[in-house]
Amino acid sequence: MNDTLAEKSKSSAKIQSKSLTIDGNEAVAEVAYRVNEVIAIYPITPSSNMGEFSDEWSAKRRTNIWGTVPEVVEMQSEGGASGAVHGALQGGALTTTFTSSQGLLLMIPNMFKIAGELTSMCMHVAARTVATHALSIFGDHSDINAARSTGFAMLSSNSVQEAHDMACIGTAAALKSRIPTVHFFDGFRTSHEVAKISILSDDDLRFMIDEKLVREHRARALSPERPVLRGSAQNPDVFFQARETVNPFYAACTDIVQAAMDRFSSRVGRSYHLFDYVGHPEADKVVVLMGSGAETAHETVEWMNAKGAKTGVVKVRLYRPFSVKAFIAALPKTVRHIAVLDRTKEPGAVGEPLYQDVVTALSEAKTLGLNPPDCRVIGGRYGLSSKEFTPAMIKSVFDELGKPQPKNHFTCGIIDDVSHTSLDWDRDLDIEADDVNRSVFFGLGADGTVGANKNSIKIIGEETPQNAQGYFVYDSKKSGAMTISHLRFGPKPIRSIYLIKRASFVACHFFPFMEKLDVIGYAAPGAVFLLNAPYAADKVWDTLPYEVQEAIIAKKLKFYSIDAASVAEEAGMGRRINTIMQTCFFAISGVLPREEAIARIKGAIEKTYSKAGQKVIDANFKAVDSALAHMHEVKYPAKPTTQRRRPPAVSSLAPDFVKKVTSVMLSNKGDTLPVSAFSVDGTWPLSTSQWEKRSIALSVPVWDEKLCIQCNKCSLVCPHAAIRSKAYDPKLLEGAPKTFKSTDYKGAEFKGWKFTVQNAPEDCTGCTVCWQVCPAKDKADASRKALTMK
Amino acid sequence: MNDTLAEKSKSSAKIQSKSLTIDGNEAVAEVAYRVNEVIAIYPITPSSNMGEFSDEWSAKRRTNIWGTVPEVVEMQSEGGASGAVHGALQGGALTTTFTSSQGLLLMIPNMFKIAGELTSMCMHVAARTVATHALSIFGDHSDINAARSTGFAMLSSNSVQEAHDMACIGTAAALKSRIPTVHFFDGFRTSHEVAKISILSDDDLRFMIDEKLVREHRARALSPERPVLRGSAQNPDVFFQARETVNPFYAACTDIVQAAMDRFSSRVGRSYHLFDYVGHPEADKVVVLMGSGAETAHETVEWMNAKGAKTGVVKVRLYRPFSVKAFIAALPKTVRHIAVLDRTKEPGAVGEPLYQDVVTALSEAKTLGLNPPDCRVIGGRYGLSSKEFTPAMIKSVFDELGKPQPKNHFTCGIIDDVSHTSLDWDRDLDIEADDVNRSVFFGLGADGTVGANKNSIKIIGEETPQNAQGYFVYDSKKSGAMTISHLRFGPKPIRSIYLIKRASFVACHFFPFMEKLDVIGYAAPGAVFLLNAPYAADKVWDTLPYEVQEAIIAKKLKFYSIDAASVAEEAGMGRRINTIMQTCFFAISGVLPREEAIARIKGAIEKTYSKAGQKVIDANFKAVDSALAHMHEVKYPAKPTTQRRRPPAVSSLAPDFVKKVTSVMLSNKGDTLPVSAFSVDGTWPLSTSQWEKRSIALSVPVWDEKLCIQCNKCSLVCPHAAIRSKAYDPKLLEGAPKTFKSTDYKGAEFKGWKFTVQNAPEDCTGCTVCWQVCPAKDKADASRKALTMK
Repeated sequence: MNDTLAEKSKSSAKIQSKSLTIDGNEAVAEVAYRVNEVIAIYPITPSSNMGEFSDEWSAKRRTNIWGTVPEVVEMQSEGGASGAVHGALQGGALTTTFTSSQGLLLMIPNMFKIAGELTSMCMHVAARTVATHALSIFGDHSDINAARSTGFAMLSSNSVQEAHDMACIGTAAALKSRIPTVHFFDGFRTSHEVAKISILSDDDLRFMIDEKLVREHRARALSPERPVLRGSAQNPDVFFQARETVNPFYAACTDIVQAAMDRFSSRVGRSYHLFDYVGHPEADKVVVLMGSGAETAHETVEWMNAKGAKTGVVKVRLYRPFSVKAFIAALPKTVRHIAVLDRTKEPGAVGEPLYQDVVTALSEAKTLGLNPPDCRVIGGRYGLSSKEFTPAMIKSVFDELGKPQPKNHFTCGIIDDVSHTSLDWDRDLDIEADDVNRSVFFGLGADGTVGANKNSIKIIGEETPQNAQGYFVYDSKKSGAMTISHLRFGPKPIRSIYLIKRASFVACHFFPFMEKLDVIGYAAPGAVFLLNAPYAADKVWDTLPYEVQEAIIAKKLKFYSIDAASVAEEAGMGRRINTIMQTCFFAISGVLPREEAIARIKGAIEKTYSKAGQKVIDANFKAVDSALAHMHEVKYPAKPTTQRRRPPAVSSLAPDFVKKVTSVMLSNKGDTLPVSAFSVDGTWPLSTSQWEKRSIALSVPVWDEKLCIQCNKCSLVCPHAAIRSKAYDPKLLEGAPKTFKSTDYKGAEFKGWKFTVQNAPEDCTGCTVCWQVCPAKDKADASRKALTMK
Repeated sequence: MNDTLAEKSKSSAKIQSKSLTIDGNEAVAEVAYRVNEVIAIYPITPSSNMGEFSDEWSAKRRTNIWGTVPEVVEMQSEGGASGAVHGALQGGALTTTFTSSQGLLLMIPNMFKIAGELTSMCMHVAARTVATHALSIFGDHSDINAARSTGFAMLSSNSVQEAHDMACIGTAAALKSRIPTVHFFDGFRTSHEVAKISILSDDDLRFMIDEKLVREHRARALSPERPVLRGSAQNPDVFFQARETVNPFYAACTDIVQAAMDRFSSRVGRSYHLFDYVGHPEADKVVVLMGSGAETAHETVEWMNAKGAKTGVVKVRLYRPFSVKAFIAALPKTVRHIAVLDRTKEPGAVGEPLYQDVVTALSEAKTLGLNPPDCRVIGGRYGLSSKEFTPAMIKSVFDELGKPQPKNHFTCGIIDDVSHTSLDWDRDLDIEADDVNRSVFFGLGADGTVGANKNSIKIIGEETPQNAQGYFVYDSKKSGAMTISHLRFGPKPIRSIYLIKRASFVACHFFPFMEKLDVIGYAAPGAVFLLNAPYAADKVWDTLPYEVQEAIIAKKLKFYSIDAASVAEEAGMGRRINTIMQTCFFAISGVLPREEAIARIKGAIEKTYSKAGQKVIDANFKAVDSALAHMHEVKYPAKPTTQRRRPPAVSSLAPDFVKKVTSVMLSNKGDTLPVSAFSVDGTWPLSTSQWEKRSIALSVPVWDEKLCIQCNKCSLVCPHAAIRSKAYDPKLLEGAPKTFKSTDYKGAEFKGWKFTVQNAPEDCTGCTVCWQVCPAKDKADASRKALTMK
């Protein structure tokens, strides 16, 4: 009982205003959890973590700002979740949910009801691509636009901090306006970006959430004590009139949201408006957009204006209700050219949704006497499914705006060689400030690289005054595939919402990537390069292919290597190299003074492993010290020492499509593929994965033909079909390499035949399942098997 | 076996080009069934009948134009139906579905997939209101607009004939364009309107459906013989490029649809365009809309122009893809004022969807060099949930367009005393041509009135050269409630897609309505009025309330009455009065020569009851002859002979809301209620139905206190709580009316108390359930009960 109370008191510990380095999902959940009583969920990528955090906190009896523990219920689908939300709201509970993509689509019917009944709530959407020709788990605004008919207000946030803030503002405003609200932010780009943000305290939230309005929400509930009917059926005689009763609420909503933003600003200091303009006060060219891309546009506009341009960006925060007045007021009077950028595609429409809104708003503003600037408007699409959206692309939009006949309905960020919609951009443009420390890490899925990097960001973000940003690119193949971590640190707010192309520090945690990927391409000239290689520092240079050597020399990199696997094994940490590589990063990247960094790593280790006991802590401490001892700078000559080129991504025997499309994607260059590379309807050829040679196994099974009982279990269980056995005519062995193993076939069917078990090392993932099922030759010694992992 | 073959041969009988008088759902199903192979359904009002027809035809082994029987599968929801459609299409089958409202919403996720994969299909939507503050089964465009992000083409039809034609054109075009299509038409107003249309023959359909394209659709199917992958997961590197591959298909789609319309016209003669303009060639005011309201606008524009106005209407047929070029081409160059009428409401948007499309199209047309007219555009909402949309309302829109500061975002057809969005209109304006015969019939739900009227329309529509239209207004209370049938007949095409207000023939088939509803209000001066009354013709006048007498005199109606119940009973037809009333209608309405009409009714009877045998036919024949013998003209004086006024719809004791709102709705005047009459969130007070006194029972239970065993079963089973029993102190009988029945209470608990069973005749529906459960006093004579229906 005491334990429970203690636990409760601990988990109820009030959050005071402070900085945390967390991702967008956690930032939103931090607010949503504390200002709600019922949370009905059906988790879907990339919003899942909001539900998972809430579920965990509820299980731990963490309380909301009123001291009660929110009830978190997982339903059978998003249809059910939205129904539960509707029901809980009608019961008077402060209620929310989290979703994305198709999940949001399944909520549409209930959303019409919730809005039609003027029910206060704020739900949170990590905006994600709706599946069309293909599914995608990544981010764009096709989901929220598919729900824009529902009558929900829609509030956009562009960064982790904004997502945290808008979760509060949206909830507060919805209580006042009675217009239910979708608060949305870019899936992955914001939901999964780790950033240092200032956290709203419980008192901040209490300041924003008006208890009187909460009581009014309660009083509107269906209750046997005040019985009313809600959800009737109406006929042509009265439905239309009853439907028009809501107009004053929508009319008032925009001012209510602005008032909530102002109240927020009065306490917290961060200021927001329905539309925020950034740029030259006399800009003649302006882009309009919403979501994370607006931050990159902000950064780009400032850079361009510093060079003498007159550009600006309007960040749309309240997308619905769309205030024509506030939009026109946000525009500089001098603007003559507007480009509206939609992160969605609506085939068949005259134009994308935000573009049509802007065109209509400008048209209406004339009639309304708002004296809008006389300007030409074009619209374009960008960033579908988290496609990169960079300053160079934004600059290309401004360049297009300057042309006498600019493209309308253009695309930005791709090469459209079919409909020729795309704008070209300068691949080499880099506008990032010099005071931003940029690091890129190549890891193998599940090797601990991402976790270690998140840990590094927390160390820097929470224990230094620096701002921090981390974004992690995963391969869909998940475990065993590539991860690329992009870390930025700097003294100023970071608005670079795109991947790092010129890093001052590049690390490759998995040596085989040097053969396959253009790792060095991510390094800025003079950058530090850290390679985990299974070789001594004085041997490592000669193992690198020609292209790598050449690039290292050309960029004059400071090159360090370490055999992290050996260090880990020696320190008793098995294959876990993450702490070792993290130590090396801090030691040579210069983001923190070396000694301070080491002390902080050790502090983090003590914190993380305090429950695991001193032995584990000591092993980690040893690994840290050992890492520094085993990392060496690689001195290299002025010219490449090898003629060995990087092998092609796929065999020359591969079919045309695999050579032209698949192999480019495998080489991490899929962004360069033009529209014409793809089928029109999502069709994809089969049997292409056979051409991908991943070579990710750290050890592979080696066959001992003498111990093998020819049971074939290894072949049967191999999840990647990498191990195969065959009985065959001995004649086929003529001309076989001497190292090719075979033995007499034991079966009665083919007397005199030979038998071989063969693993394909490039396809093998080293999962050891074959080894596990291989029957021990000797029952007393289970390690004596026909297969050995080597 | 022979039977089955005969049946099959019968149901497979090929339809030749001919006229049928059917409703919109059947008109669409007639095409959709014959040009598809798989039909996956989950029926929802008002689209259910399309699925039901298909199901019935499939069960009867009716074949499509290729001689195979379509497979009709009913799924667990519209989510499943759309999944089955997606699957069947990917299997290469020509596939369709039918839906409405929330049903369409549940299909949205699959629709994105089907469109993203460029899958040819045409589905059919009886467009219906999406539930918001209240559910409504009636028609507007909120459902199809909620699905406009999906990438489906959207093809609108405005009448029963067009729905039939567009079902064909949409399917043909989708096969060519590969853009899946939603063909939609107004729920109820078109789906349930019965009209005389020209039916496309199998050969017409074969002419339109290109077999080569069908084979190409088949060839694109997923098949083990040509294995490909479709429905992959794509990442940021390639999704955007792959998504843009569809552009050429959308670009080509508009021309393909126009080509299909042209091909259709070349064979069938009925001509359609992406946008059809009707009106003055130099119109300065134009309305733009889609759906059935466009026909009324067509009629109104012609009437206004005949009076010297310069107005026009653009009928939007292909809503998606929206062709800016075709839209601008359809507009007269002279137009200066455009009103876009949306049959939907999107709270929070800058404007309704079609309005934003038109504004954007005009803006883009300038840039595209299409030289659009320079005009001012306003937008308005009309017809939500099948709200009446009349020529007077359309005229009010043109009037508004002529003002210097016209309202934008107006409403049309309601009185908005809250936001003051509404345009006023002239309630007395009637523009219908004199050669249109208009009849209105008041019936009791399930009394056969609607069925008889449908039969009458078929007789006139299919056996005379006249055009015919029937629309049936039901009360949601269904059986036992009011039905109003609106029938039009005339030599020209009927474009009056609204209820009849000035009928040349009015019939009231249920006498109690005369006490409650303004039946005579529907009659034009000099019209024929037929009343079914349980009185002799010379007695009936004095039974009518003052208001009715006054109105009949003022309008100089030709007044006939018949006691149809007596005639029916006498003819051995029980309570079925439909044939009798139909006979009277034909005899006195003048739509057909009397003798010809009688012959046709008898012909219809022989056809309908041929399987039931000669006895039934004879009874019906007798009823027809007897009807004519028992119908008499009622001669009435020049002044009312009674002072008895029509009683108020509800008691003076009713609460305020019931008096101000409910009672108006009960009096069939709900259309007159302003916006302020309704709560903002769909909330409705409880316990209001007690104030509605329906008085629909033709007979009520009468209690015999001497036979009653006080079992209370009658009270227990009464579905409307109209019959109640009570034991009470005899003192309470002091001052009771002498006719008040009571008897000694039999129970032991309250010795000496009295007991009464009392029915409330106004609430009783005469269902006889109480009488059925009343235990017979005498087992030998089951009719001796304490309750008797009288």
